[in-house]
Amino acid sequence: MRDAYHEELDALTGRLVEMTRLVRSAISRATTALLDADLHLAESVISQDEEVNRIFAEVEATIFDLMARQQPVAVDLRMIIAALRMGTDLERMGDLAEHVAKIARLRHPDSAIPPEIRATILEMGQIAERLITKTGSCIASRDVESALELEADDDAMDKLHRRLFTILMAPDWKYGVEPAIDVTLIGRYYERYADHAVRVAHDVVYLVTGSRPADSNAF
Amino acid sequence: MRDAYHEELDALTGRLVEMTRLVRSAISRATTALLDADLHLAESVISQDEEVNRIFAEVEATIFDLMARQQPVAVDLRMIIAALRMGTDLERMGDLAEHVAKIARLRHPDSAIPPEIRATILEMGQIAERLITKTGSCIASRDVESALELEADDDAMDKLHRRLFTILMAPDWKYGVEPAIDVTLIGRYYERYADHAVRVAHDVVYLVTGSRPADSNAF
Repeated sequence: MRDAYHEELDALTGRLVEMTRLVRSAISRATTALLDADLHLAESVISQDEEVNRIFAEVEATIFDLMARQQPVAVDLRMIIAALRMGTDLERMGDLAEHVAKIARLRHPDSAIPPEIRATILEMGQIAERLITKTGSCIASRDVESALELEADDDAMDKLHRRLFTILMAPDWKYGVEPAIDVTLIGRYYERYADHAVRVAHDVVYLVTGSRPADSNAF
Repeated sequence: MRDAYHEELDALTGRLVEMTRLVRSAISRATTALLDADLHLAESVISQDEEVNRIFAEVEATIFDLMARQQPVAVDLRMIIAALRMGTDLERMGDLAEHVAKIARLRHPDSAIPPEIRATILEMGQIAERLITKTGSCIASRDVESALELEADDDAMDKLHRRLFTILMAPDWKYGVEPAIDVTLIGRYYERYADHAVRVAHDVVYLVTGSRPADSNAF
């Protein structure tokens, strides 16, 4: 049987996995809100980000408490450091989903997304969901191999991000500046969301192996 | 006299202050590179970001080593946690300055910044420098009061960021989509740079008082 201390560490993992579920749901709903100009859904993403922040505050409090009481070493210490970083990144992913939802709300009842861009945004949303789903599994399973596999999805996201700019800068772009600004920001939010998912997965690698893969910083 | 352990903690503070100097210089040169379409200066920002990353890697290594060897408690533990977070934010600020420089390089020999935008970007660059200078002083002095004063500069940055959008979306904007995309991204980079500076200052407050002010998340 595990002692109370290790049960607290396990609970921390559970809270992080819960955060991944919340920020997955947030980006999923934000994408739909954006594509369908659904104000109600956008509002739900914006109001529910508080829940992510609340869990992160709890995670932080637990970590500081564990550090003060237990003076963790070796893998436990790595777990605590990794949890703090993972929590920070997941909290930020919630913010990014909220930013996407805020653009949907700002342009309602219009859609911020011109027809030519819809397929790309839909795909970015799907990749974001796939990434965070895999990240959640990585945290739960501590599977280093699958953590390293996230790179491929992140590359796919970067490719879609570049495709957005190609569409925006094409001579036949007919929507003018305002939608171009919206799409630029939205693209950036998805791309950053993916980067943070990869960072979280890298912290799983750190937790298990003691060393962290270099984060790519292409953009 | 201080023991070796506390000398190591002091050295950590010194390394973080050094990071603030490097990312201050980076954003300063990136702003000039952008406004003067100075390719040489842009390249220097891009190549020198490695130095920031290198120092951060050292800071991380020192922290993990201290945690494993010393099992720090109370204010020392807070110093270590805060240093890890501050280092993460400062490293990101270096990336953001690099992103600004990359846009300058991409548009060279043209300037990415139309004349109507120059004054606003110049001011954003100045506020960014002021923020990071104050942040550096806060880290060195552990002055909670001045750490909390950074909010005013951050508000000024947000105001300039909004002004950018007003100019971009005005009916008399005559530069089309590409410069609008550049300016949108550049504005975002400065605004995030300021956010990270405030986060670092908030970690000084945490370090001294044991609790951290809430980060604003207006955008």
